[in-house]
Amino acid sequence: MKKRRFISKGHLIDSGILAQILNLIVEEGADYEIIEFRIGKTNAKESLLEIDLICESDDKLQGLSARLVHIGCYEKQTPEAVFKASTADKCVPEDFYSTTNHRTEVFYAGKWHSVKHQRMDAVIVAGDEYPECRKLRDVKKGDRVLCSTESVRVFPPARERESDDFGFMSGDVSSERSADFTVEKIAAELIKMKENREKVVVVAGPVVVHSGGGKALAALIREGFIGGLLAGNAIAVHDMESVFFGTSLGVCQKSGKPAYEGHKNHMRTINRINHCGSIKNAVDQKVLESGIMYEVIKSGIPYCLAGSIRDDGPLPETVTDMIKAQGEYAEIIKDTSMVLMLSTMLHSIGTGNMMPSWVKTICIDINPAVVTKLADRGSGQAIGIVSDVGLFLRAVAARCIGDYK
Amino acid sequence: MKKRRFISKGHLIDSGILAQILNLIVEEGADYEIIEFRIGKTNAKESLLEIDLICESDDKLQGLSARLVHIGCYEKQTPEAVFKASTADKCVPEDFYSTTNHRTEVFYAGKWHSVKHQRMDAVIVAGDEYPECRKLRDVKKGDRVLCSTESVRVFPPARERESDDFGFMSGDVSSERSADFTVEKIAAELIKMKENREKVVVVAGPVVVHSGGGKALAALIREGFIGGLLAGNAIAVHDMESVFFGTSLGVCQKSGKPAYEGHKNHMRTINRINHCGSIKNAVDQKVLESGIMYEVIKSGIPYCLAGSIRDDGPLPETVTDMIKAQGEYAEIIKDTSMVLMLSTMLHSIGTGNMMPSWVKTICIDINPAVVTKLADRGSGQAIGIVSDVGLFLRAVAARCIGDYK
Amino acid sequence: MKKRRFISKGHLIDSGILAQILNLIVEEGADYEIIEFRIGKTNAKESLLEIDLICESDDKLQGLSARLVHIGCYEKQTPEAVFKASTADKCVPEDFYSTTNHRTEVFYAGKWHSVKHQRMDAVIVAGDEYPECRKLRDVKKGDRVLCSTESVRVFPPARERESDDFGFMSGDVSSERSADFTVEKIAAELIKMKENREKVVVVAGPVVVHSGGGKALAALIREGFIGGLLAGNAIAVHDMESVFFGTSLGVCQKSGKPAYEGHKNHMRTINRINHCGSIKNAVDQKVLESGIMYEVIKSGIPYCLAGSIRDDGPLPETVTDMIKAQGEYAEIIKDTSMVLMLSTMLHSIGTGNMMPSWVKTICIDINPAVVTKLADRGSGQAIGIVSDVGLFLRAVAARCIGDYK
Amino acid sequence: MKKRRFISKGHLIDSGILAQILNLIVEEGADYEIIEFRIGKTNAKESLLEIDLICESDDKLQGLSARLVHIGCYEKQTPEAVFKASTADKCVPEDFYSTTNHRTEVFYAGKWHSVKHQRMDAVIVAGDEYPECRKLRDVKKGDRVLCSTESVRVFPPARERESDDFGFMSGDVSSERSADFTVEKIAAELIKMKENREKVVVVAGPVVVHSGGGKALAALIREGFIGGLLAGNAIAVHDMESVFFGTSLGVCQKSGKPAYEGHKNHMRTINRINHCGSIKNAVDQKVLESGIMYEVIKSGIPYCLAGSIRDDGPLPETVTDMIKAQGEYAEIIKDTSMVLMLSTMLHSIGTGNMMPSWVKTICIDINPAVVTKLADRGSGQAIGIVSDVGLFLRAVAARCIGDYK
Repeated sequence: MKKRRFISKGHLIDSGILAQILNLIVEEGADYEIIEFRIGKTNAKESLLEIDLICESDDKLQGLSARLVHIGCYEKQTPEAVFKASTADKCVPEDFYSTTNHRTEVFYAGKWHSVKHQRMDAVIVAGDEYPECRKLRDVKKGDRVLCSTESVRVFPPARERESDDFGFMSGDVSSERSADFTVEKIAAELIKMKENREKVVVVAGPVVVHSGGGKALAALIREGFIGGLLAGNAIAVHDMESVFFGTSLGVCQKSGKPAYEGHKNHMRTINRINHCGSIKNAVDQKVLESGIMYEVIKSGIPYCLAGSIRDDGPLPETVTDMIKAQGEYAEIIKDTSMVLMLSTMLHSIGTGNMMPSWVKTICIDINPAVVTKLADRGSGQAIGIVSDVGLFLRAVAARCIGDYK
Repeated sequence: MKKRRFISKGHLIDSGILAQILNLIVEEGADYEIIEFRIGKTNAKESLLEIDLICESDDKLQGLSARLVHIGCYEKQTPEAVFKASTADKCVPEDFYSTTNHRTEVFYAGKWHSVKHQRMDAVIVAGDEYPECRKLRDVKKGDRVLCSTESVRVFPPARERESDDFGFMSGDVSSERSADFTVEKIAAELIKMKENREKVVVVAGPVVVHSGGGKALAALIREGFIGGLLAGNAIAVHDMESVFFGTSLGVCQKSGKPAYEGHKNHMRTINRINHCGSIKNAVDQKVLESGIMYEVIKSGIPYCLAGSIRDDGPLPETVTDMIKAQGEYAEIIKDTSMVLMLSTMLHSIGTGNMMPSWVKTICIDINPAVVTKLADRGSGQAIGIVSDVGLFLRAVAARCIGDYK
Repeated sequence: MKKRRFISKGHLIDSGILAQILNLIVEEGADYEIIEFRIGKTNAKESLLEIDLICESDDKLQGLSARLVHIGCYEKQTPEAVFKASTADKCVPEDFYSTTNHRTEVFYAGKWHSVKHQRMDAVIVAGDEYPECRKLRDVKKGDRVLCSTESVRVFPPARERESDDFGFMSGDVSSERSADFTVEKIAAELIKMKENREKVVVVAGPVVVHSGGGKALAALIREGFIGGLLAGNAIAVHDMESVFFGTSLGVCQKSGKPAYEGHKNHMRTINRINHCGSIKNAVDQKVLESGIMYEVIKSGIPYCLAGSIRDDGPLPETVTDMIKAQGEYAEIIKDTSMVLMLSTMLHSIGTGNMMPSWVKTICIDINPAVVTKLADRGSGQAIGIVSDVGLFLRAVAARCIGDYK
Repeated sequence: MKKRRFISKGHLIDSGILAQILNLIVEEGADYEIIEFRIGKTNAKESLLEIDLICESDDKLQGLSARLVHIGCYEKQTPEAVFKASTADKCVPEDFYSTTNHRTEVFYAGKWHSVKHQRMDAVIVAGDEYPECRKLRDVKKGDRVLCSTESVRVFPPARERESDDFGFMSGDVSSERSADFTVEKIAAELIKMKENREKVVVVAGPVVVHSGGGKALAALIREGFIGGLLAGNAIAVHDMESVFFGTSLGVCQKSGKPAYEGHKNHMRTINRINHCGSIKNAVDQKVLESGIMYEVIKSGIPYCLAGSIRDDGPLPETVTDMIKAQGEYAEIIKDTSMVLMLSTMLHSIGTGNMMPSWVKTICIDINPAVVTKLADRGSGQAIGIVSDVGLFLRAVAARCIGDYK
């Protein structure tokens, strides 16, 4: 039998990490022996686990060790990290370490080093000062790439229970809850973060406009609650369509009926912006005088409209190259305290891919499957709210601002 | 080739009936010849169709004729209706006529007779004065049951286009519409119907309470907008649980968190009502002093709580026998101008089964599949709104009443 | 500060119970001190926790203690149980103990007694030999009802990890999994249970027939894989409609097109059975010669068709009184090893209400929300599979039986 | 009152066009007078309508006329088309004509001209030989752009009833249908189209792989049933991950359990392909020897992997610029007889945007909302099938090929 000794420290019990560790070992048909377990006697104190993982083969030991590391164990006799040089651009050795979105440290030169720019599905490259996450496509020949899982320590987020009223929501996704309470909580959070000058980023899909939440989002931006917008071409088109023609997807926003020539209003909108040269120009020339995009440009918050295969136009500001768009998204999402994901699975998953797991993430969608998919793709920290995003945003804006227009 | 000549009159084109007739014939591999077609020159005028149905066999002619009748054709040479005596209780001859929920007439004694108590899936029994719909289970031995489709005339509802702002909504079911407009329309309709003393019946599931719409519905009842409530045991339990303990399904309605002993609050509620003997008694004894059930009892509007296999309790007022419950539902739904179906597939389908198709039917649910199922089961007149029922009801109540409590 | 000392034993960590205990205390703003914690050194060994719960008020201590009991703690100095006499039929004292669906023991006469007939939302009545669960409505005046939570010990199910291949599925509900593996697992389980003469009960809705799974279910019954059927009137009607007329809901099962007079086939089916007097008679008279109901009756397995407000007919065998139907369901579900819930939320929740939590429960539905609702209503043990129930059942039957007809 | 006379010809009744025309006029508060109506006496014969549209204002007349044109009316006194020169790249005059995806003709030089490259949301530019659809972004300064709706004739698709067995499915989207029949129909269609050398294009999302349909799709490609693949980066990654490591999204495809280091398998896959330089190279170097991408490359059918904001990698073949990707999609979709859209809303809407409406379009998804959204965005011809795509594809492949591997 092969054996390896691991340590895990922190709020192991209440965060469920201890359960995960033991379950993982047993499910995989391996065995364990607990060498020491010191439980935090009170809520304030941390626990400590020392455990032997016992497997039949080296292979299994290796595989299972890697998974234990991902949920917060590290080897007691941590070896120095092994970095191997990349032999070609965009290529790394087969045994590369693949990151999670949790806080991570690497052991070398006799001590633990914090990893910068944490995100999931990256490799870790040894920099001059510190190790950092790098996307595979950004790896250059000769980069020194981390290839030893056994020198890594990962810190899955513990639920900050006392300070965090959102914790209770993280259990499940149900369409049978009152949205009323969550409206209040999110409004309170927005108000607090504005006071504290913390950054809130909104990821928004066109349903925000179709479902009648456009003015509410515009008001939240104008009043300084939002510090960045990640979106696609469609929401910008439909937002400006609603400003220019009072329709979205050709449906009149007042009467709910299809409007005269409504079907072509989104193309007329793009044409009008093309005439101006850009959305920015349209604002400067007073062609565009209200709405989400207007407020975004007026307030000067950073934004990115990422292109997609289904775009009409696209608008001049839309970033049609995905490598570039991902770069801009990643820049905007930096140092964010909270992300509100509003009815767009595509951009929400895209944003989740770039974010560390300790950012508060709220996903509002009428379809409960969206949150399940986010979690399936690694953004397990996302709290799901199943509601009508238009009605929801209007209620949040009313609490934050009062009688907004 | 076998041939039969049919007439159809009315707004054949704009209601789509003419298209249905021709499509049906062709899809079934039969043929037609149009003998005469007089189109209504203007919107006010009716059209008239005279058409020969041509089939290879008598059998096919018979089957297809029956389906044409259901969509509004009748035989030019209408024969006298054939009524056959039932040979046993709950039994009818194999060739019985099975009803739709559309307005229907039967030809006998040389003229057309209107059928009373129209509903779907019934048989037509010859009464002394008029023919009437009867449920199969209510047929008595000796009842004279209609067995000739060729003596029937059905009037599918034409869209009342000018007078009816809801018409435009009937196209499809989408979660991407603004609920704002429909909130306004439904509020306007409720206000108008209250003025006109028209009856509005609500069919409601427990999600109304869980999603925070309980107070809004209670206020609408108190202010006289609602003329009847069709529901189950669960909404009554959870409504009173929220009044007694501030929770629904054990979740605190203020904080959104599970409450102390919340899990047993629905059983405590039932126990408390059992101590009083009935909900009515609880109101009289001032044990119950607000909420949906309180307002229902105070206002004296008719209601029925139909039992189901998943009931806890049930409450004393819950009708546990389904035959009896269907009878009470049918009584309450009589002479109704509008039905609002709020997040309960079970009771909505049950109610749809009993109603004529000309009653305005609005179904509000967060799940788009519910409306599809309603239509699959014959209630094709239902207009679906995909939204968060709690937020939706609160918005409707605010428009109808202002600042309700 | 008020204090109470609790014990908890078992697989506290891997089942997540220890995490639940600590989280609950902290979320409720109380405090704890761990007096002793002995961890099971290996997977085979149990852990033991001794912990002080510390609250500001007696009230809070009382409320929180009750919730700790529900997740597996019991008081170290367990007091004798307090039973109070019911003062009226269907009524219990306000401080009654409300049951979970987990295994439960009560302490009196100096020792722990196992509770019989475990189910959720019941009270515990002292019998001559043992304490037992009783529904509130079955309580008689004078019954001695348990009123002391502090004398109760609850055993939430630990995941039987090694022996149970289903464990891994319990995490979440996703439509993005391959049904292939779950088909194989369920087939293997059915085969094993048949060999071991364990009882498998199916809870089935009409979608089983509409989606083309009727023959597969019939074959599984015929071949002895199923030991009981819990359903409603609708699946029986549509099953026999498909046998008699080749349609379900009027749609031809071969061509997928609406059939001649298909709309009335379900009424013709009921009429035909009414002529026979019962489904049983129809089988005896060789009127009904295949299908789900035929196999149920031929095989002699117990079944119950519970009525509902949306029933047509109903069929003679349908139990229209819900009190009676719940009684029959409860009888059939006894001593069951596995329950398959097939596309019926209503009957699945109803069945879940009556079952102890240690029965393997699989819920197959195309709508992910159904499993969420089951869990919201206490049946947290249900494993959800999001798939097309017709295709799924056919695949399971093919694995169990080979080339079935 | 203002008046304009329109003609409409064709299968006006059974296709519902006549109803649409009259309803539109009345809903918009305008009036009509029918000048002549000649009904096709039999199914084979076309109908002819001559109608006056009557409005209060020129403005309304103008707006409503445009909408009538879109559903198949044209002005009796058709004026010569007005083309106006574009004053800048990507810009057109405000009164430009915006296309539908239906067959279209323009009247000038005294006769009707067919428009080439039909697609929705384009403008029509006068070419030397014929008018053609052009995307707004491809308009060059000086291009002559059609600006007169009154010179246009649109031909919405009539249901080809006799020859087309899919017609009956187009009614609605229900999860309560048997997939069995649709499996058979689609298999038959694939077999027929292969024989006739008609092109079938598949639009596929990663759920095809996750849900276990990868081998089935690969087999269909290998056997020559598929003539093109439109997809994104993700399905290619997960397809090759399943070939290399037996997992998709890290979940073992045999056991359904998370695999050793499974979480990084998609990154290892990309890394492996990066080492080869491309998917093509991986096939040539025998690194990749089976699966969807392998069969695509071996068979030489055209394909495009369009990038998106949520991509990992991306793979070398992924087209990261959306303008370029839309161009490649449009090229592949040309001259296609049938499109199968498999569980990807993004790429399905993208593809629908580029296609004429007369291509048979089948959309298979477990979520009924996907088809509703497709229709909301103009692809109203799409027939929706709500099923488990993995089980569905396996069943289709089994019918087409027999015992595939």
